[in-house]
Amino acid sequence: MGQRRDGITALLLAYAQAEPPEEVRAGMRLSVLDWAACGLAGRREGAFGGWSVPGQGPCTRFDGLAGSPAEAALVNGTLSHALDYDDTHFAHIGHPSVVVVSAALAVAEAVGAPFADMLDAALVGAEASVAAGLWLGRDHYEVGYHQTATAGTFGAAVTAGRLLALDQGTMRHALGLASTMAAGLKSQFGTMGKPLNAGLAARAGVEAAHWAGQGMTSAEHGVEGPLGFGATHHGADQTVAFAWRMAAVSHKFHACCHGLHATLEAVRGLALADARQIVVRVHPRWLSVCNHPAPQTGLEAKFSYAHVLAMAAHGRETSDIASFTDACASDPQMVAFRDRVSVTGDPKLSEMQAHVTVDGAVYTHDLDTPQPLEERRARLRRKAQTLVGASRSEALWQAIDAGDLGRFGQLLVP
Amino acid sequence: MGQRRDGITALLLAYAQAEPPEEVRAGMRLSVLDWAACGLAGRREGAFGGWSVPGQGPCTRFDGLAGSPAEAALVNGTLSHALDYDDTHFAHIGHPSVVVVSAALAVAEAVGAPFADMLDAALVGAEASVAAGLWLGRDHYEVGYHQTATAGTFGAAVTAGRLLALDQGTMRHALGLASTMAAGLKSQFGTMGKPLNAGLAARAGVEAAHWAGQGMTSAEHGVEGPLGFGATHHGADQTVAFAWRMAAVSHKFHACCHGLHATLEAVRGLALADARQIVVRVHPRWLSVCNHPAPQTGLEAKFSYAHVLAMAAHGRETSDIASFTDACASDPQMVAFRDRVSVTGDPKLSEMQAHVTVDGAVYTHDLDTPQPLEERRARLRRKAQTLVGASRSEALWQAIDAGDLGRFGQLLVP
Repeated sequence: MGQRRDGITALLLAYAQAEPPEEVRAGMRLSVLDWAACGLAGRREGAFGGWSVPGQGPCTRFDGLAGSPAEAALVNGTLSHALDYDDTHFAHIGHPSVVVVSAALAVAEAVGAPFADMLDAALVGAEASVAAGLWLGRDHYEVGYHQTATAGTFGAAVTAGRLLALDQGTMRHALGLASTMAAGLKSQFGTMGKPLNAGLAARAGVEAAHWAGQGMTSAEHGVEGPLGFGATHHGADQTVAFAWRMAAVSHKFHACCHGLHATLEAVRGLALADARQIVVRVHPRWLSVCNHPAPQTGLEAKFSYAHVLAMAAHGRETSDIASFTDACASDPQMVAFRDRVSVTGDPKLSEMQAHVTVDGAVYTHDLDTPQPLEERRARLRRKAQTLVGASRSEALWQAIDAGDLGRFGQLLVP
Repeated sequence: MGQRRDGITALLLAYAQAEPPEEVRAGMRLSVLDWAACGLAGRREGAFGGWSVPGQGPCTRFDGLAGSPAEAALVNGTLSHALDYDDTHFAHIGHPSVVVVSAALAVAEAVGAPFADMLDAALVGAEASVAAGLWLGRDHYEVGYHQTATAGTFGAAVTAGRLLALDQGTMRHALGLASTMAAGLKSQFGTMGKPLNAGLAARAGVEAAHWAGQGMTSAEHGVEGPLGFGATHHGADQTVAFAWRMAAVSHKFHACCHGLHATLEAVRGLALADARQIVVRVHPRWLSVCNHPAPQTGLEAKFSYAHVLAMAAHGRETSDIASFTDACASDPQMVAFRDRVSVTGDPKLSEMQAHVTVDGAVYTHDLDTPQPLEERRARLRRKAQTLVGASRSEALWQAIDAGDLGRFGQLLVP
């Protein structure tokens, strides 16, 4: 069931029909909890407080309005990514859950699907987005595309199309429409455009599936054909096999760009305040993503090795979103500390690894070291408690555990 | 007032504030009439009859529902391009009016702007889209992007931002958001995805302007900066001067792809039924756009030199949208006639020229030969009469001439 002759489209169609293994489902439930907590906290954080999207329909939105499936996917995809605290898949460097869970919940509520179907649709969509990201390859990301959004659009189309029970021919049209709708640039990082990219991808996938179901036609090989999405968007046309890759999704336990996490984990527990020289070595890819040398806002600080190390040195809790303020970014003590940090690209390291030298002593961490499901569950429940409080967090978990979609939706409204 | 140091963004900002010359306005009124007739006829044509977009708001839609500005821009941009019969600008090969007039009407109705402001906003947005297309250059189009949609998104953002009276800093954010939303592929040509691209561009521009006005931030140099739209989308970064290029917009008088028009004009009035060999020479660019050798549907026939010449030979009126049926595409007489036609690329010709040899005799046409405004007006009024009937056509023209936005909107509902 690998990639067939007509390319990635066949693989995406295979995911749309696949039956997920139970242990991968169990991990996806954790991603759904994490998504819910990030969305609720993202709304509360306020950057998007002035943003107004019309609302007319049955679908739950983090902003408290009910909307159409497309509106809900847009709003929830954006707000759940607003804090940049949601899960990441490093196979292609993207945030799968913000896009596909937003799409899945919206369509499931609209069609009255049960929680179990919503979960499976989100999961196969997440797999499809990771597969699309692997098919596009590194060039696509490095030239400037935000794979969360571009690959994510194909995942959201698979998610929505499965919940709408599209047949394979119609799903192919949905993917063709997705190929002409998918967009999103990395140059938006550090602005509100970054979370918006995720919301737009969720909406595009939902709309592509709905519109194909209404009879809209599109290019049959719009994804991988000549002049298709891959050919136009610097896709590498990598061969991708069918696999369940969401078992290896990473969760964030620091409220900043994932590229900083291995570094923070490497020095966790160390007293850094008196360090004279810190040399960080990471994969060169991260240098264009999260090596802001002199952040001036809390948002920019989330993309700065120098600043998060300054925070760690001065006892600022990097797991708490409230720590990343404009005041923190311009705190003179921390601004001064940033000069002690230098960051170097090292192609021998993987993107998941960090090699940190503090006054000659070496500390390392590898995010790829697998975490047992039980440990992930415990850490995510603590994280959710930090984000939304203990009672809401526990109620969310119970709704997920019980597979109660109605109750789950009620708990997403502030 | 040419392109400044920070690139195309400065030029787009200049258009947003510019005061159009009266004679260019007069031409834009013709484009608005043409847009209205194409939209009404596009809705009637029925391909999008099953398409359902939620409607809640004050803005007129060709499908008879009222919607939000974003919804109206999406629906009207799509339906007015459904027939591929709207205006074209050959400076960058795009359809400006479907995108910017759809955006202009929607936002003007939402904010209660008068017709004159709607017209000027559409005009400067059209200029901005042509300028963006020129800045992107030919590579962008040839690699597979549908400039109507990609360049059009920037035009629609300028249009909407002007009507929302965004200040320059906010307009810059709108353009930054447009840069991460703009999309659309040529591989959709011949499917419903092509008109959809235009509608999505209109919506993206409207949303980018609204959201920037609500405080959404984006990359300051999202259009032309590193990892910006141009760098990621095969843009050539051409230098573009401020100019009023809509004076040279082309209108379609044949209900098929604009690439076929010079050829049809060249042989207009000739009796072709007994021709044994017809050799068409056109700019090589068109060979990947509208040289379908064996169309099987009416839609595909609109992109086929061989078939439109077969229609001309057999007395099928190419100015009438009703001529392009699936039955016409598979008519055995015309299918047989197609074998007499061969098409060759000739880089010495401009994209506006055709050189047609019929059994040794040469006929040529150049669409670039300017048409006086009065002649354009007369031909467009006849075209509108064909599309929507004499009384509706005249009423539309009176509403445009009188600058009556309310009456104009009423006439757009079937």
